[in-house]
Amino acid sequence: MATSPLVGVVMGSKSDYSCMGAAVRTLQEFGVAHEARVVSAHRTPDLLWMYATEARGRGLRAIIAGAGGAAHLPGMLAAKTIVPVFGVPVNATSLNGLDALLSIVQMPKGIPVGTLAIGEAGAVNAALLAIAVLATTDPALGDKLERWRAAREQLVLAETLDEGGNA
Amino acid sequence: MATSPLVGVVMGSKSDYSCMGAAVRTLQEFGVAHEARVVSAHRTPDLLWMYATEARGRGLRAIIAGAGGAAHLPGMLAAKTIVPVFGVPVNATSLNGLDALLSIVQMPKGIPVGTLAIGEAGAVNAALLAIAVLATTDPALGDKLERWRAAREQLVLAETLDEGGNA
Amino acid sequence: MATSPLVGVVMGSKSDYSCMGAAVRTLQEFGVAHEARVVSAHRTPDLLWMYATEARGRGLRAIIAGAGGAAHLPGMLAAKTIVPVFGVPVNATSLNGLDALLSIVQMPKGIPVGTLAIGEAGAVNAALLAIAVLATTDPALGDKLERWRAAREQLVLAETLDEGGNA
Amino acid sequence: MATSPLVGVVMGSKSDYSCMGAAVRTLQEFGVAHEARVVSAHRTPDLLWMYATEARGRGLRAIIAGAGGAAHLPGMLAAKTIVPVFGVPVNATSLNGLDALLSIVQMPKGIPVGTLAIGEAGAVNAALLAIAVLATTDPALGDKLERWRAAREQLVLAETLDEGGNA
Amino acid sequence: MATSPLVGVVMGSKSDYSCMGAAVRTLQEFGVAHEARVVSAHRTPDLLWMYATEARGRGLRAIIAGAGGAAHLPGMLAAKTIVPVFGVPVNATSLNGLDALLSIVQMPKGIPVGTLAIGEAGAVNAALLAIAVLATTDPALGDKLERWRAAREQLVLAETLDEGGNA
Amino acid sequence: MATSPLVGVVMGSKSDYSCMGAAVRTLQEFGVAHEARVVSAHRTPDLLWMYATEARGRGLRAIIAGAGGAAHLPGMLAAKTIVPVFGVPVNATSLNGLDALLSIVQMPKGIPVGTLAIGEAGAVNAALLAIAVLATTDPALGDKLERWRAAREQLVLAETLDEGGNA
Amino acid sequence: MATSPLVGVVMGSKSDYSCMGAAVRTLQEFGVAHEARVVSAHRTPDLLWMYATEARGRGLRAIIAGAGGAAHLPGMLAAKTIVPVFGVPVNATSLNGLDALLSIVQMPKGIPVGTLAIGEAGAVNAALLAIAVLATTDPALGDKLERWRAAREQLVLAETLDEGGNA
Amino acid sequence: MATSPLVGVVMGSKSDYSCMGAAVRTLQEFGVAHEARVVSAHRTPDLLWMYATEARGRGLRAIIAGAGGAAHLPGMLAAKTIVPVFGVPVNATSLNGLDALLSIVQMPKGIPVGTLAIGEAGAVNAALLAIAVLATTDPALGDKLERWRAAREQLVLAETLDEGGNA
Repeated sequence: MATSPLVGVVMGSKSDYSCMGAAVRTLQEFGVAHEARVVSAHRTPDLLWMYATEARGRGLRAIIAGAGGAAHLPGMLAAKTIVPVFGVPVNATSLNGLDALLSIVQMPKGIPVGTLAIGEAGAVNAALLAIAVLATTDPALGDKLERWRAAREQLVLAETLDEGGNA
Repeated sequence: MATSPLVGVVMGSKSDYSCMGAAVRTLQEFGVAHEARVVSAHRTPDLLWMYATEARGRGLRAIIAGAGGAAHLPGMLAAKTIVPVFGVPVNATSLNGLDALLSIVQMPKGIPVGTLAIGEAGAVNAALLAIAVLATTDPALGDKLERWRAAREQLVLAETLDEGGNA
Repeated sequence: MATSPLVGVVMGSKSDYSCMGAAVRTLQEFGVAHEARVVSAHRTPDLLWMYATEARGRGLRAIIAGAGGAAHLPGMLAAKTIVPVFGVPVNATSLNGLDALLSIVQMPKGIPVGTLAIGEAGAVNAALLAIAVLATTDPALGDKLERWRAAREQLVLAETLDEGGNA
Repeated sequence: MATSPLVGVVMGSKSDYSCMGAAVRTLQEFGVAHEARVVSAHRTPDLLWMYATEARGRGLRAIIAGAGGAAHLPGMLAAKTIVPVFGVPVNATSLNGLDALLSIVQMPKGIPVGTLAIGEAGAVNAALLAIAVLATTDPALGDKLERWRAAREQLVLAETLDEGGNA
Repeated sequence: MATSPLVGVVMGSKSDYSCMGAAVRTLQEFGVAHEARVVSAHRTPDLLWMYATEARGRGLRAIIAGAGGAAHLPGMLAAKTIVPVFGVPVNATSLNGLDALLSIVQMPKGIPVGTLAIGEAGAVNAALLAIAVLATTDPALGDKLERWRAAREQLVLAETLDEGGNA
Repeated sequence: MATSPLVGVVMGSKSDYSCMGAAVRTLQEFGVAHEARVVSAHRTPDLLWMYATEARGRGLRAIIAGAGGAAHLPGMLAAKTIVPVFGVPVNATSLNGLDALLSIVQMPKGIPVGTLAIGEAGAVNAALLAIAVLATTDPALGDKLERWRAAREQLVLAETLDEGGNA
Repeated sequence: MATSPLVGVVMGSKSDYSCMGAAVRTLQEFGVAHEARVVSAHRTPDLLWMYATEARGRGLRAIIAGAGGAAHLPGMLAAKTIVPVFGVPVNATSLNGLDALLSIVQMPKGIPVGTLAIGEAGAVNAALLAIAVLATTDPALGDKLERWRAAREQLVLAETLDEGGNA
Repeated sequence: MATSPLVGVVMGSKSDYSCMGAAVRTLQEFGVAHEARVVSAHRTPDLLWMYATEARGRGLRAIIAGAGGAAHLPGMLAAKTIVPVFGVPVNATSLNGLDALLSIVQMPKGIPVGTLAIGEAGAVNAALLAIAVLATTDPALGDKLERWRAAREQLVLAETLDEGGNA
């Protein structure tokens, strides 16, 4: 990517990419400069440290972090940077993502992580929220986001249901 | 407030203010222009509609919305505006805020709500996240936030524990 | 449908129809005039507004609303109309419909949603409850409902089990 | 009560009245003819049987049933009558009403119980839902319900918050 | 069955037999006189009433009752008979049997249901518990049960594990 | 106690007696010979072993075992005796007794524990279930239990509610 | 195994080996002397007793115990030995391992079980924790464990993600 | 403390000391050299880093880490050291410690945290487990631990219950 990334997408394991790839594709759809990396809180803690420490200086405006189970990645990034961190609970254990959700959202007073829904819906929405953050000072991007929403609204309005009650 | 508000703090009921007041006080501490209102998704739906519809035009850069139980306020605001919405689950029923948490965080693909922790910790953190969003394009505010964090770190570092093992 | 609908069946997404179609088929079985539409609280909020605002005037006697995840559709419809709203939690996320159940049932004082079971059982039962509401002033429909139940009772009474203990 | 009751309020134990009394007061506020009784599914099953069997013939248009723990009262009433049954989970055990909620709402296909929120909010809302059912064929009552809602909306609109961020 | 049944196995729906058949097979293995029937609390309430009312007089010494979702069958049987009732939560909804478990086990003071594990393990164990009840006054059956257990213990003791760590 | 005990009441800790004492009082009310002891699975495992091993030979017809948290007492007793074991989950940790409930009820195929409700209601009901087991071969005790229930039914039937809707 | 085992891996049922085999393979990878056995708390309680009683004397430095459902094996071993016990909740019932987790981790004051994650991750980690315990007095093993971790860190650092956002 | 500490007790906040002080007192009771510090994963991440990095070199044989909510402290320490980490979920939010439990126990493959019970029981047991680890190579300490247990067993054996069934 030629331009410097504004949004960083990180995840605790390459296997999380089946979920987190949706965030990347959403950023691509909006043409937002971004990067995507595997950064594991538990297996590569020093990389996490460095990534978070450098984030503001590198010009990142938002970090999207996805992890499953005892998901410490979003919160530990948030502990080391003031760049807004949006966390995505990945459904990676037998507990259906509830463990990841609570591990991410229940941050103590002082260090926020804006948490999205469990799984791919959360990954897409983390990207949309990062775009919304950029749009607060980029009216053109904001207008694009409003048009994207309006188009989706039209799609729903055009949907019809089978009279016979079948799916 | 003389200056136009950048952050709107809304809540589903006046009784939520015992929790959400912490968001207001945090914004005050950082000198961020804000407003606070009761907007009930269920009792004043038209006010919700108007508030969300006008938010971007009025210059709001973030909306903090707190609600308990079947907490629809953050998600419905997000459905009507592209201004970033940060949701705070208020512990208002016998289910300890779990109902509010799931009602806020499990948004479907397309409409994000950045969700914080249940209760007052979440209210403070929603304010800090809104400040972090503003700080992405306001370096002075970002520096202030970093200093605020550093001061808190010093406080922890200065804490000592009773040798006798008592609280 | 020639006659004006008495029951409206709405759902947050076309994919919910695999669950909510059972409500439609139940209404058809009883010959109750009805309509079915996709109305998304988050993607088509204005349609939701209009649908709810017009419901009483259009002669609807009950609204059946199904949604998954952070399910705001039933509660927001209820916020805008006094027509009885019956909510069906759709199992649409990794949390098995518990998120939808709590998002629908835990409504605050003042705005009721009569909530049914998660999934297709709930969809069928929402239709039966709407029929029961109509039957309070339509004795013939009430008698039909009693006969329908009696027939089901006979079916159970006629069931026999394999002596060998096999399913 | 001189007029024949239209709504029956029943509860599994006298101690549930601290919660279910709110349903009674709401029906009184709207001037709806009603009755209130203790009917225990487990301690007075024959009374339950009789109450449900006679309900339609006695002219009841809705039954509000509250119970805690393994709450069988609403579902067993619904099994014996086609009069709409609205269930209120009472918070009566250490599980915060979650047991009562699941015991009431997860009814199998064929026998619906419209379930409200746990506790007093659910009791009030069960009454409002019963009133809404009556209002489907009683326009004056419907208008009264709309005015009641409008008045509550005005109350919220008039609420102001303390500038200092205190509750 | 020539001899009068000592244990009745009932279940809320024929589909529950894939789970409850294991109780029947266990009783057969021990040569305990029994019967098996579909008795639905919600679809055949009068049959439930009759079954429970006659149970003691017919010589039943234990009733095994399995049901899923809002599982009212065990508790309602127990409300109408003093014959010991053992409940089996059937995993029949999206909530993995937790709804059935709480609906069965959380009975109020006065009417006990001895509850077993969710699913087939619970069905087998309900039969073993009924056998243990009979064995309190039938030493030969008790000895048989002790031998059955000892044989199972030997089976476990004979198990060996693959040195290579494979399943 | 002069007569040999028929029912043993054991509990994991003396502090459980505030809950389990209700089982003892119920057995006393019915004049059933019993004993009560503290037997801790974790602190006095050898006592548990001995108690269970001797139970059948000592003439016990039922064991009532209450424990909280990781409640292993009922299941381990059941592993060592064929005397019916009825388990009472005691609410002794921050998880409201859910941990104790699952630790007791989810026994594997082969070793049953008939589980009652969490807390005092479960303690009373464990005693009633033990009495019901004795009553299967003691008609006089069975008649006494039926009269006890009938008396409770009359108490409920005599309850009246305050017209004004107050508790 | 020629050398005397330092770590014992036990599990409640042979079927648990599909999960617990991962612990064995991890110990093999590190060349730690170990043994693996089926020891069922409920089916072979006497074996459990003997195993725990002899553990310290036999030179075991850690016991890894896996079980599902009402998982009593780890806690009962811990009750009979001071050798550190590490428990692995096996996902063996419809409750996704939550029952096993609470049955293992919520041990009362006095008898600890160090509990790992549900399922295979927990089995691997129990082995790693046992190795870490041995490493506290075996520097060479500690160095090996540090190298093992460093190698895994390198693997993550070398991972790259598909630019196109695909998994 | 004159001697170099063998066990480090750390906690996320000074307020956790009301729970974690019990670990300190237990270590004192056994005369085990230890230290206690506030180390916050989120507020003092650099201190956490340093503490974990130096732990092995400083001679620590076990680290006890307590934290509440999104409890990242134990897992992040474990990510940076091979010294065994024992985690204590502190009950610090409205979710009763369930959030802390899942945040600590559900660690991914590779980085173990031995997790104890929620709250003070867990704090005591973490200390006992650390002592047990030391005892694997310190027979005198092991003997002391066995005597401590035997004394507690005697205390239970000496407990008697009130004949009247009162607590």
